[in-house]
Amino acid sequence: MITTDPLKELRVNGDRLLRRLEIMARSGATPSGRVSRLALTGEDKAGRDQFVRWARRAGCAVSVDKIGNIFARRTGLDNGLLPVMVIGHTDTPPEGDKFDGAYGLLAGLEVVETLNDVGIDTERPIEIASWTNSEGIRFSPAMSGSAVFAGAIDLDSAHENMDQDGLSLVSELEKIGYAGTENPGGRSFKAAFELTAEPGPILTSSAKQIGTVSGVQGIRWYEVIITGQEAHAGTTPMDHRRDPMRAMMAILDATYDLAARYAPDARVTVGDIQADPGRFDTVPGCLTLKLDLRHPEKVLLRAMHQAFHELVYDVCNMSGMNGEVHDVWNLPPVVFDAGCLDSVRKAIRTVGVASMDVVSGVGYDAAYVSQVAPSCMIFVPSVSASIQQDEASVNKFDATAGASVLLHAVLDQALS
Amino acid sequence: MITTDPLKELRVNGDRLLRRLEIMARSGATPSGRVSRLALTGEDKAGRDQFVRWARRAGCAVSVDKIGNIFARRTGLDNGLLPVMVIGHTDTPPEGDKFDGAYGLLAGLEVVETLNDVGIDTERPIEIASWTNSEGIRFSPAMSGSAVFAGAIDLDSAHENMDQDGLSLVSELEKIGYAGTENPGGRSFKAAFELTAEPGPILTSSAKQIGTVSGVQGIRWYEVIITGQEAHAGTTPMDHRRDPMRAMMAILDATYDLAARYAPDARVTVGDIQADPGRFDTVPGCLTLKLDLRHPEKVLLRAMHQAFHELVYDVCNMSGMNGEVHDVWNLPPVVFDAGCLDSVRKAIRTVGVASMDVVSGVGYDAAYVSQVAPSCMIFVPSVSASIQQDEASVNKFDATAGASVLLHAVLDQALS
Repeated sequence: MITTDPLKELRVNGDRLLRRLEIMARSGATPSGRVSRLALTGEDKAGRDQFVRWARRAGCAVSVDKIGNIFARRTGLDNGLLPVMVIGHTDTPPEGDKFDGAYGLLAGLEVVETLNDVGIDTERPIEIASWTNSEGIRFSPAMSGSAVFAGAIDLDSAHENMDQDGLSLVSELEKIGYAGTENPGGRSFKAAFELTAEPGPILTSSAKQIGTVSGVQGIRWYEVIITGQEAHAGTTPMDHRRDPMRAMMAILDATYDLAARYAPDARVTVGDIQADPGRFDTVPGCLTLKLDLRHPEKVLLRAMHQAFHELVYDVCNMSGMNGEVHDVWNLPPVVFDAGCLDSVRKAIRTVGVASMDVVSGVGYDAAYVSQVAPSCMIFVPSVSASIQQDEASVNKFDATAGASVLLHAVLDQALS
Repeated sequence: MITTDPLKELRVNGDRLLRRLEIMARSGATPSGRVSRLALTGEDKAGRDQFVRWARRAGCAVSVDKIGNIFARRTGLDNGLLPVMVIGHTDTPPEGDKFDGAYGLLAGLEVVETLNDVGIDTERPIEIASWTNSEGIRFSPAMSGSAVFAGAIDLDSAHENMDQDGLSLVSELEKIGYAGTENPGGRSFKAAFELTAEPGPILTSSAKQIGTVSGVQGIRWYEVIITGQEAHAGTTPMDHRRDPMRAMMAILDATYDLAARYAPDARVTVGDIQADPGRFDTVPGCLTLKLDLRHPEKVLLRAMHQAFHELVYDVCNMSGMNGEVHDVWNLPPVVFDAGCLDSVRKAIRTVGVASMDVVSGVGYDAAYVSQVAPSCMIFVPSVSASIQQDEASVNKFDATAGASVLLHAVLDQALS
């Protein structure tokens, strides 16, 4: 006997989702057909207002906290239970994409609309959260709203952030009417999901429609200074030279080997080399390198870190150079919540799409939210499979499938 | 029967030579004990005046040409014969050395004084030439005086060269009274010798007192542009990258191999690497390198040049990069005159010093003079064996031996 579960047949309305993304994109539309909605500008206010109008029309109660995060809440059958959150944001970079933060945000709204359409009430409330200054273009650092919410940055210092014209974040919040009264971080959640376009080519090149994002890579930045002996290109015989270029080549060789040793998740990037004095006719006395190592596993990133320090010193010692490694930045990996990931995997089976586990190479609001609530992320493929961060368009088929997966992941957490 | 030839016993007066170098060093003496006598400054005028006084007192006739070159002439028994020239200059870099150009110049004077002391007249006249703006620090390009003399630069354009304060070379010549009336290049010579401290470590490390400079390395400069694909350090898997750093490493490996293949005279210098955009979190889209290849043999330098072009394109083609090689500068090798070199080698045997053949890695006035007269150079060891160009001090023993070798080389040419 075959039974069908009508709930499992439920899908979002892709036409409505795409139409709303188009409407949202009018706020900050650029002549080139892109979207420029920098945080807390008039364009961002228009985007926020549009989201709030739709959310209220869908029956949500809207509240705003002191860092300008917006929470649109659909009540549950038991409002004493912790809600399930969907994560998005309204701001974009200059010449950004209509999908950037709006896709996750409006997919959250689409979850609510779809449940409204069929009259389903969940046990738990559902909240759609739009986070302030996620892109970090106008105010640095990025993800002000989620960082303050998670307690990683304090409210006052975030308020005092200045844009390049000397305007503070708090004054701009007040100007656009989004300086709320609620203290950030006062809310708890059962689970949080962030749906976004993959900022890389993996899903497209693997022909998968959904990426289950199991975590965010840890990042370590290094400045390496290799000091040899400045020498004249003509008068110094090759065997009299202490050329830091030679040591650099051995260091880069061994560092790229780390990427192979910790493949496939390790990333090794040599971003910059500066030679002093940088003349044609002079063996440089000193080289300064910028390197970026990433791995999603804390233990393996630490192993790469130690191996890297050792190889720099080993190469420099063997070649008679002076080597220094400065640790410039250390962002530990994020491992997303197993329960949330399980909900996403079940949703993928329900919707019936090809998927794979991926690790995010960049930070998202979900990384901060994961410090205070069980969280995970869902990727859909970028149309261009581009490695340019500002080309994140998603085709309609994938955008709709992603929102349906989000719907079922939310339901899995909110129904009980 | 053993006969001694009193002429062969003749040696310069090292005390006098060193004393005069000390006196000359008072013009432009710096607080740190160095010498700063930039071309055509008041200090350079003082140095020139000092040289001219000594030359006249030694019986020389002094004339000055339109580019400010000074010729101090000791008459010969037959003044219809072409004279033998000794090359020097009075200018120094900032914080230069008392030996820089003055050593060759005053060694020339010492040749004249030594012949005067013993009353020897040569068949041919002997001329000591002091060349204008040899260092090229105040006016660029360097070696204005010898370049104009050899016809490599025309007089008007040399006259119009500006220093960084907008003062022209000709106006500064006039100001210090060294804008002569003679047209440059109107003189012919039987032979020309330039004696100077080696600007490198070879003689000291080889424990030789004299270097017979057989030529000047040819120099080729290249700008290499390697274009791959800019990519995000986090989101782009290693096997999706077109990282120009990888191609660069292969290019540098193969280029340094050229130095080994054309050893010991080849020089390969990688002077600069610029990465665009040069960020920690971005695989550079493009690298721009500065490279310098040198070899004293025209044919072998050309072979290195061709191999270099090919290896850049081969590596780039194989690794999917776009590679461009721009030829920035090409200075052909100088091969000094066999007859002059023969005179130096005979002089070395006469004086009885340990010597070796060397190739100069930098240009000298002799390189220009060699275009219009048989020429060669003589190196003595630098005390520091330093690879810094501004540390060229010579010990008294070597300085005296070098001047005595110069004396006998000049005699070999001037006596017949």
